[in-house]
Amino acid sequence: MPKHPHHPDVRDVRLVRIFSALGDPARLSIMKILADHGEHQRGDFEVDVTPSTLSHHMRTLREAGLTHHRMEGTRCFVSLREDTLQRFPAVLKSVLQAVTTEEREHGSVL
Amino acid sequence: MPKHPHHPDVRDVRLVRIFSALGDPARLSIMKILADHGEHQRGDFEVDVTPSTLSHHMRTLREAGLTHHRMEGTRCFVSLREDTLQRFPAVLKSVLQAVTTEEREHGSVL
Repeated sequence: MPKHPHHPDVRDVRLVRIFSALGDPARLSIMKILADHGEHQRGDFEVDVTPSTLSHHMRTLREAGLTHHRMEGTRCFVSLREDTLQRFPAVLKSVLQAVTTEEREHGSVL
Repeated sequence: MPKHPHHPDVRDVRLVRIFSALGDPARLSIMKILADHGEHQRGDFEVDVTPSTLSHHMRTLREAGLTHHRMEGTRCFVSLREDTLQRFPAVLKSVLQAVTTEEREHGSVL
């Protein structure tokens, strides 16, 4: 992870990229954890994938404009991007609510 | 295309599959056309892809539970699945509205 990971400008964030990023169970779980608990240390996500797969998911979410990654020494803290949430408020709010409903009905989004 | 294409039961429709299906510009365009114009003949979509790629996109949308495919002789008519829209009303309504906004801002979802 570089010292200052690249984040796309909010004006370049595109819906199709957002959906592509959300179209994976682990990434959807990560989004749900961030929505429920706020900023999270990168190593602390309880997602059942290998470290290299987790890195790939984290990069996909960041490059889609969904997450902000903040370095503190060697640690990386991840949060939802407020500017993206504000650009697509209805979409992202309804997505996160639907994930909660689906988790209740099926036990998980997996 | 078989005479009676398979449609998943609405209870088996999963969010992660929906987002994966929406995470492609051509498929997002197809969803927008269906939302704006209702049922559409399968060969009439103005999407700039080859026929075999269009077939793949159509199957992906159908298997995700987003579209209903009705055969009439050799012709196939495609529409949005009302039961899926009713199961995830906020998500799909907000998605389709956001696509409209993005088209206005950027000219297309591509």
